[in-house]
Amino acid sequence: MALAVLVGATGSHIASWLHPETQADASTSIEWHRETAALAERGLFDLFFIADTPAARTSNLAGFSRMPLYMNVLEPLTLLSALAGSTRHIGLGGTASTSFSEPYNIARQFASLDHISHGRAAWNVVTSANDFAARNFGLERLPPHGERYARAREFVRLVQALWDTWEDDAFVRDREAGLFFDPAKQHPVHHEGKHFRVHGALNIERTPQGQPVIIQAGASEAGRELAAETAEVVFSSESTLEGSRAFYRDLKERMAKYGRQPDDLKVLAGMPLLVADSAQEAEDLHRTLQHLIHPDVGRMYLGMDLETDLSDLPLDEPIPEERIPKDANHHKAFFDHIVHLARVEKLTLRQLYLRYERGRQTLRGTPMQVADRLEEWFSGGACDGFMLTFSLMPGGLASFVGKVVPELQRRGLMRSRYEGRTLRAHLGLRRPPNRHVAAQGAAAD
Amino acid sequence: MALAVLVGATGSHIASWLHPETQADASTSIEWHRETAALAERGLFDLFFIADTPAARTSNLAGFSRMPLYMNVLEPLTLLSALAGSTRHIGLGGTASTSFSEPYNIARQFASLDHISHGRAAWNVVTSANDFAARNFGLERLPPHGERYARAREFVRLVQALWDTWEDDAFVRDREAGLFFDPAKQHPVHHEGKHFRVHGALNIERTPQGQPVIIQAGASEAGRELAAETAEVVFSSESTLEGSRAFYRDLKERMAKYGRQPDDLKVLAGMPLLVADSAQEAEDLHRTLQHLIHPDVGRMYLGMDLETDLSDLPLDEPIPEERIPKDANHHKAFFDHIVHLARVEKLTLRQLYLRYERGRQTLRGTPMQVADRLEEWFSGGACDGFMLTFSLMPGGLASFVGKVVPELQRRGLMRSRYEGRTLRAHLGLRRPPNRHVAAQGAAAD
Ligand SMILES: Cc1cc2nc3c(=O)[nH]c(=O)nc-3n(C[C@H](O)[C@H](O)[C@H](O)COP(=O)(O)O)c2cc1C
Ligand SMILES: Cc1cc2nc3c(=O)[nH]c(=O)nc-3n(C[C@H](O)[C@H](O)[C@H](O)COP(=O)(O)O)c2cc1C
Repeated sequence: MALAVLVGATGSHIASWLHPETQADASTSIEWHRETAALAERGLFDLFFIADTPAARTSNLAGFSRMPLYMNVLEPLTLLSALAGSTRHIGLGGTASTSFSEPYNIARQFASLDHISHGRAAWNVVTSANDFAARNFGLERLPPHGERYARAREFVRLVQALWDTWEDDAFVRDREAGLFFDPAKQHPVHHEGKHFRVHGALNIERTPQGQPVIIQAGASEAGRELAAETAEVVFSSESTLEGSRAFYRDLKERMAKYGRQPDDLKVLAGMPLLVADSAQEAEDLHRTLQHLIHPDVGRMYLGMDLETDLSDLPLDEPIPEERIPKDANHHKAFFDHIVHLARVEKLTLRQLYLRYERGRQTLRGTPMQVADRLEEWFSGGACDGFMLTFSLMPGGLASFVGKVVPELQRRGLMRSRYEGRTLRAHLGLRRPPNRHVAAQGAAAD
Repeated sequence: MALAVLVGATGSHIASWLHPETQADASTSIEWHRETAALAERGLFDLFFIADTPAARTSNLAGFSRMPLYMNVLEPLTLLSALAGSTRHIGLGGTASTSFSEPYNIARQFASLDHISHGRAAWNVVTSANDFAARNFGLERLPPHGERYARAREFVRLVQALWDTWEDDAFVRDREAGLFFDPAKQHPVHHEGKHFRVHGALNIERTPQGQPVIIQAGASEAGRELAAETAEVVFSSESTLEGSRAFYRDLKERMAKYGRQPDDLKVLAGMPLLVADSAQEAEDLHRTLQHLIHPDVGRMYLGMDLETDLSDLPLDEPIPEERIPKDANHHKAFFDHIVHLARVEKLTLRQLYLRYERGRQTLRGTPMQVADRLEEWFSGGACDGFMLTFSLMPGGLASFVGKVVPELQRRGLMRSRYEGRTLRAHLGLRRPPNRHVAAQGAAAD
């Protein structure tokens, strides 16, 4: 069972930074990240993962100044490179958007990270979904979803071509012959596409992993197709076992038309966790966290999913009927859930935000309960492993490493030590042959 | 006297990788870079510097496969971040081109490096000068020189504005008040320029240095103006004391019209070195290196500066008169020097490339001779310090650290330990106040 951890500073709970157990300045502390990466490595995780949005909010600051996710963060590539030296085994994955960068720069930086980490780099390919990010890059708003994915596809395939610029043994460094590289083993890219034109060779040799691992988390039709064609790790975010199974089957089936085997791609199911020694302790901690939510944040948060502004409403009264919109434009399920709590349970605004949990519900439970759930999903064909998030960091991860990992090992679901030296080895992903080399069992192209 | 070292793997001599003392795979070895940075730090250098061109050659490979500079390198930002953890004091500077990146990404990555290194980041702003690099980024060729510098100016000023997005004390992280940052201390950038449009806030707080240090090495009129307006370190590359003095005076005089003090910018004179225990040893090592140059490289090298193709000519005969072009288009001084050696000294092609040294001649000498030259230039008003390159690395740097540094210390020209904790402190550069804060002695803008 593959395990990744999504590291978002103080934790995935929106009020986590207010909990005394967390370090409020974690998001920009390299020491905090080094310690957290070391912890994940002690837990024999496959992947340490940093998500990203290249932007900070500039509006609704009454709420966002109290719920600071992604407002103030280290940039993923520089952060992961810094962690390469303080870790030895764990994979180092980070997000970079195909909407706001140049393929040559992305190809170089992830290749460089793969060399620096001796084969542990992974790139999470995202198209980004925020207009406020687009405005940092010369655009009024994001291009439409389909266009973003068309660009992403061209981008990824171009980056992969750049990674194959040099055959694995191109740099002979033969002092007797005075030859640093064999010119016949350089294969410049000549790409003229709809979004990019690149004519050149990458200025870094092929990497320890052959190519850094490609991650994606697209859920839409276009997202799944891109994943089926190019991804090697996919983060899924279905909330039920059945939904996750269906996603898993769907994605693996799509791969055949791209000439890929199901095993060339690992699906890691997103799993938000809150682990405690007893079920009661878990509930107590959850309640503590919910009560740390500032009313402004609660209102903003609900308002986002109810798709209306609630900032002027009193906290201790129900939402007036006329303030509830007719229907949702974005997240129908979230919307309906809030409307139910407001209309049927007649909760006040305060009761509502204390009760409401956005999106996927956190699994709260004992180490045994958590292990049971992971085993159920893994053995039930819902995934090849998990992308874990923890309400509190690094506390949640520490509990998991200390209490759940041993249980998973006992059940034969997890390694007892790292056997390989690269992220591909950990995940059981083959090292891709260079497309310019006709190898046994691999066709040249 | 400020000291920087330009680290280009095996050394600045074109045949350095063939010398048995160097490590042929240095350019992609993170271990090699860690050791070299540690050495420079033992020598109390201010700055460890990585130059860059975002491209590998794809033509003339008969020569370039034997002279591999920049064909296969770690990318500067990922490399420097990785070095932040293995060093504690030395500044970490790297090149990024304003012709091929997005200001928001550059602002973030250098800000992140400044946080990760606790105040040691520096960005060398270049416009790039290679068409083969432009072809990696959708262009047929580079825009004209003036246009590149206009873009560079807009780029740098925009990055500096992004670095001032947040006041130094914006992130209060006040748990009692539930306030992560003070919204009044966020100052989004609203920029609509000729080359860039950016509306947003940087998603990382102001850095330990206030802003990373800006380096430039432009020599042209446009380059000097940009430096006078924005740079805090300038690498000069004059070959004579007099020329260097004139450059120094010229640059510092230009600063007044931008409201800057001469001391706000440090000029580091480029100084290529080959240090040995005796003058004879230095000459011997130089001769050894010259003889390691492969004839294909010698021919290509001469051909580049003579601005003609010499690849078909026999090595042991003079260059036929009719193959010498009428005049130079690029480097008149280099061209004239070669023509002189060919016509007047009547050297054969082989003798010529063994004799010829491109550009600035390497200072070869004993530790005492090197210290004398540095003192002469420094005390003579030619510079505020030096950007050193060594024919062989890390050997040359090791000799310098072991033998020249103590002599400079004895003369009172160098520190005996690091006193400050940031690159700005080492260089005696003030920490720039945030433009949005009216401070004593600093005007708001
Ligand atoms: C575990 C996980 C991590 C993600 N990380 C990022 C991220 O770092 N940056 C980002 O812009 N989107 C991120 N996403 C969003 C996805 O890339 C994707 O945009 C989203 O799931 C919607 O799917 P679609 O793009 O196919 O519409 C993440 C999603 C998941 C499930
Ligand atoms: C010490 C030194 C380091 C330099 N590093 C780079 C570099 O890393 N990348 C680059 O493209 N140019 C580099 N340059 C070139 C300068 O940025 C500049 O383009 C050149 O000196 C010509 O000046 P001009 O641009 O004003 O015409 C360097 C120059 C010097 C002297």
